[in-house]
Amino acid sequence: MHSLAAKSLLEANNILIITHLRPDGDTLGSAYALYYALKDIGKNVCVACHTKITPKYQIITNGQSDLKPLFAPNFIVAVDIADVKLFGVSLKKYAEKIDISIDHHPTNEGYAKLNVIEPNSSSTGEVVLKIIEKMGVNVSKQIADCIYISISTDTGCFRYANTTADSFRTAAKLFDLGADVNYFNRRFFEIRTRCQIEIERLALQNLNFYRNGTVAIIVVTLDMINKTGATEDDVEGLSAFPRIIEGVEVGMTIREIKQNEFKVSSRSNGLIDVAEICSKYGGGGHKRAAGCTIKGDIKDIEKSLVDSICVSFDEIENIDN
Amino acid sequence: MHSLAAKSLLEANNILIITHLRPDGDTLGSAYALYYALKDIGKNVCVACHTKITPKYQIITNGQSDLKPLFAPNFIVAVDIADVKLFGVSLKKYAEKIDISIDHHPTNEGYAKLNVIEPNSSSTGEVVLKIIEKMGVNVSKQIADCIYISISTDTGCFRYANTTADSFRTAAKLFDLGADVNYFNRRFFEIRTRCQIEIERLALQNLNFYRNGTVAIIVVTLDMINKTGATEDDVEGLSAFPRIIEGVEVGMTIREIKQNEFKVSSRSNGLIDVAEICSKYGGGGHKRAAGCTIKGDIKDIEKSLVDSICVSFDEIENIDN
Repeated sequence: MHSLAAKSLLEANNILIITHLRPDGDTLGSAYALYYALKDIGKNVCVACHTKITPKYQIITNGQSDLKPLFAPNFIVAVDIADVKLFGVSLKKYAEKIDISIDHHPTNEGYAKLNVIEPNSSSTGEVVLKIIEKMGVNVSKQIADCIYISISTDTGCFRYANTTADSFRTAAKLFDLGADVNYFNRRFFEIRTRCQIEIERLALQNLNFYRNGTVAIIVVTLDMINKTGATEDDVEGLSAFPRIIEGVEVGMTIREIKQNEFKVSSRSNGLIDVAEICSKYGGGGHKRAAGCTIKGDIKDIEKSLVDSICVSFDEIENIDN
Repeated sequence: MHSLAAKSLLEANNILIITHLRPDGDTLGSAYALYYALKDIGKNVCVACHTKITPKYQIITNGQSDLKPLFAPNFIVAVDIADVKLFGVSLKKYAEKIDISIDHHPTNEGYAKLNVIEPNSSSTGEVVLKIIEKMGVNVSKQIADCIYISISTDTGCFRYANTTADSFRTAAKLFDLGADVNYFNRRFFEIRTRCQIEIERLALQNLNFYRNGTVAIIVVTLDMINKTGATEDDVEGLSAFPRIIEGVEVGMTIREIKQNEFKVSSRSNGLIDVAEICSKYGGGGHKRAAGCTIKGDIKDIEKSLVDSICVSFDEIENIDN
């Protein structure tokens, strides 16, 4: 599969690489690793993304925030895109014309002519690296940096449960190839912005526990966002926060997106199906991570969500008895 | 060196392994890895530590908090102990009788008969693993778990600047040997106790910035510790906090240890010598990490420290001009 992908890429030119919307480190790291590899062998190539690149990830894009297709492509690669919906409006016209899809999401159903999907890989970057190696292209420091960003951001710096022996082995290889491991670690996993600290300071004052500490809910209001100047990047970091507290089974972050309109991010440790809870409010997702949008008064919303979670706990306890 | 250490250990019996006081994951992981390896080949062996083991690390000691020597030893190994002062009062009688010292601290001057000191190693655990391999002992899951705890805790889960390609390579090997990588990652680097969150919530309200955000000071009072029930483990996590904020050059955590008596932990990103600042108050340490204890009113202490830091900044600016 890697050989086949490598062969097609070596034969292609005018190559467009597409990342998913609201891009993260893995989709951008994968795209730019492939971009540099193809550039290095003289190909005409560009990267496109529907959404603007947030400051956090502009280190990968050399400071560029707008990534629009620069030419009419003859060959299109999608990286780290589980579903064509994630191309975004401006790029969906390419969705039926994808030559290679390189991904690691198990839900990817294979919308491309050639699908290189490896769900056991902790990041798409690792799959991209294998293809670059098959292409016989020298893995430059620049490429190693991009792949390291892919792996480290998708594994939370080797902390998350998707980390494998291969993640560590690849990281060792990238370190030897000159990747700035220490620099990226400090930048992505250590340094926190003033705004992040400020929004956390305020949000922690709105952290409430329910059901003997098994449920934790954090509320981020527009007022808090305005007061602190927190960006999308800053607020995003709070989503996982309630769930990492000892004893918490269900963690929710409720964020005001418009006056009296709230976006709910739910995380479960596996006991409670948060997708089922969110579906009651017109949302959805996975058992362990789901979301929905609710309009109304925040006090009522929080109470309603807590009630729904308690119902789910009761159902499980009834089954157990 | 590894062979020599392995040979002596194979020939020895009634072996005492000593860890440093206020033990961390590396000293305990190293000690227990060696303990299991020696147990597995039928040796009489025990681990000793001057200080009680905090709950966080009792997962390594099988729930034991008191580690006293169980017999009169014929052979003594010190692991991860840079200086004999760190043996603690109850174990200092062994300081002149150490057969092997296994360590990675560059300041270790070699107080043992055989000194295996590897400053390029990110943890002492990695050095211990090499010796166990030379002993020809099978690296069991239990041993792999201990070494993984050593490496991961000393590198902050591969985040800190001491992380090397070898750290990653060893982690890959330990993963393959069955180490519970995901479990330990979640336990040491993800899960936070309610007390940690509560003390952070209060401490963040006492986070002050000075000198255009280049200085950050956090104050933890006895009242806050009492209110939250925070332990030594919980408060310790706050020491590094101010320094990880973007733009901060000098970060200090001031912690009330008795009524009107404060312990100051200082961290610098390298520009300012915090050891010099702390020495003004009778303390000391390294350029980037130092401490002191000050008596008095917290407002006066904070003001005095800020003034001292500003003097240091001024001196540097004068040199530059």
